[in-house]
Amino acid sequence: MRVRALWYRGGALYLIDQRQLPQRTVVRRLRRVPEVAEAIRTMVVRGAPAIGVAAAYGMVLAHREGTYSPERAAKLLTATRPTAHDLAVGVETVRASWAAGDDPLAAADEYREKVVEECHRIGVAGAPLLLRVHRVLTHCNAGALATVEWGTALSPIRVARAQGADLFVWVDETRPLLQGSRLTAWELARERIPHAVIVDNAAGAFMRTGQVDAVIVGADRIARNGDFANKIGTYEKAVVARENGIPFYVAAPWSTFDEKRADGHAIPVEERDAEEVLSWAGHQVAPRASKARNPAFDVTPARYVTAFVTPAGVVPPRRLASALRRHSGL
Amino acid sequence: MRVRALWYRGGALYLIDQRQLPQRTVVRRLRRVPEVAEAIRTMVVRGAPAIGVAAAYGMVLAHREGTYSPERAAKLLTATRPTAHDLAVGVETVRASWAAGDDPLAAADEYREKVVEECHRIGVAGAPLLLRVHRVLTHCNAGALATVEWGTALSPIRVARAQGADLFVWVDETRPLLQGSRLTAWELARERIPHAVIVDNAAGAFMRTGQVDAVIVGADRIARNGDFANKIGTYEKAVVARENGIPFYVAAPWSTFDEKRADGHAIPVEERDAEEVLSWAGHQVAPRASKARNPAFDVTPARYVTAFVTPAGVVPPRRLASALRRHSGL
Repeated sequence: MRVRALWYRGGALYLIDQRQLPQRTVVRRLRRVPEVAEAIRTMVVRGAPAIGVAAAYGMVLAHREGTYSPERAAKLLTATRPTAHDLAVGVETVRASWAAGDDPLAAADEYREKVVEECHRIGVAGAPLLLRVHRVLTHCNAGALATVEWGTALSPIRVARAQGADLFVWVDETRPLLQGSRLTAWELARERIPHAVIVDNAAGAFMRTGQVDAVIVGADRIARNGDFANKIGTYEKAVVARENGIPFYVAAPWSTFDEKRADGHAIPVEERDAEEVLSWAGHQVAPRASKARNPAFDVTPARYVTAFVTPAGVVPPRRLASALRRHSGL
Repeated sequence: MRVRALWYRGGALYLIDQRQLPQRTVVRRLRRVPEVAEAIRTMVVRGAPAIGVAAAYGMVLAHREGTYSPERAAKLLTATRPTAHDLAVGVETVRASWAAGDDPLAAADEYREKVVEECHRIGVAGAPLLLRVHRVLTHCNAGALATVEWGTALSPIRVARAQGADLFVWVDETRPLLQGSRLTAWELARERIPHAVIVDNAAGAFMRTGQVDAVIVGADRIARNGDFANKIGTYEKAVVARENGIPFYVAAPWSTFDEKRADGHAIPVEERDAEEVLSWAGHQVAPRASKARNPAFDVTPARYVTAFVTPAGVVPPRRLASALRRHSGL
């Protein structure tokens, strides 16, 4: 039953096509680095940690193809999406290994293992936060599909459930691409974790009426001071959670932390095609004369975060910089 | 170019089928009161003031049919949807006239005229609030389609535009039924008012980054203290607006004010079919095993409201009770 978003075997990267879930479970086999870049760009694979791992294997495929320099392959892959920090980390890890004459596949495998293991540690670190609550709200998909295995936000939920916690998950559907109702609901349904899908609009109403005990989300990039980018709508949920005295947790592996960035001020936010908003499955919804804006992420200031759930434990924003220094020092 | 949501002629109520906009402009002709009840229940017509007027004409059709008592017709119509206060007001206005032996059609016509005229006065009262701003955000559809003509939230926008204001409208798409991207965008596109549709999730991000100067919405029911029910998501927008120091206005005719209700505590909130969340145009989106919750409205406490835009002028929440007393005294 355990979900794996992607795996590498026999010179090919295999990805579950996340655009087709939950209706169809289609596995794509990619053998060339431009295919990996395209799969990241078109969101066959998405979720910051998962695209970092996919891109790491993209570097392996580039090395096998023989016509790329490490730098050119890295550039091709990192140009696909601007917001997730993990993408750059995954690519750079394998690029450095390749450039040093080491085996890129070993570097990619090691990187993947590290992400999976960190996600499990996030679950162990975060589970105690959920043992005395019942109803947890999450936004977008920060599950196994977003991280290879375990998830970030979903990992503490999985671990707490295994420890006997009686949890119910509110799943924001997460427009425009519905990663909540399609992907998070799919992961929860497979494991028979009780949940209900809601329109993003409804999260605040359930918070105000005392039906949400905690909020936990993933992240795409976290600055040193704790400002962080995540799926559009995260900021609203964070503001409304604080307004209602509900703890708000952000779970992420180390690859999501951008230590060079002091705060969230200049985090690049990807703006995607207006058609994602104006149309549905190829059918126009809005009038043809209407325009749309479609930022895929927003930036939430650290002051709305109760704590970060990291592989090294639960860290409030004021202690984040020192936790990052400790981690880098290892 | 002026939009009219409904009209009565030759013993029939004509309604634009709002479920089919903007792709198709289909006008439904209804001759029997159960058809009107069904049209309100299934949201052929929606928007609190508009369903009040539609139900008023439903009473006229019941009277013509000859087999209904005023009470039975009133009960049939008011049972369709629980949240909008205008529905009860429209029905009661015609019921009282009918029961007193007066002409129900004259009462319904007069009620419609009153709603239209009040909406125009809302526009005149609210326009000055918009003369020194540029980017206005609205949620759901509180336009002509929701009110017969002019609109509530859209009326000040229309009047301010006619007075030369350079306005740009952010249109929340408003899941699950997309009244924003389908209906508000349609009204704005017809009048060439610049606008952009955004997913509901994105409203907060545009507020935080200084791209929203004011928020204006309609309402379905407003209590004496200013707590009010409106389309699900309104509460989130109100909280995030206040967090960012952005004025938040609620525009409504008198029929939306429920003077018997002290506060928002027990406003009935309709919960609609889970399929509105789980499916799209007949296609399942979420896994079949997933459940959903689908409250159609939420209640926003008065403390988040900068002012109500009423037919008698702009009224801050602390002066609402006395404004209502003055109105009732007229």
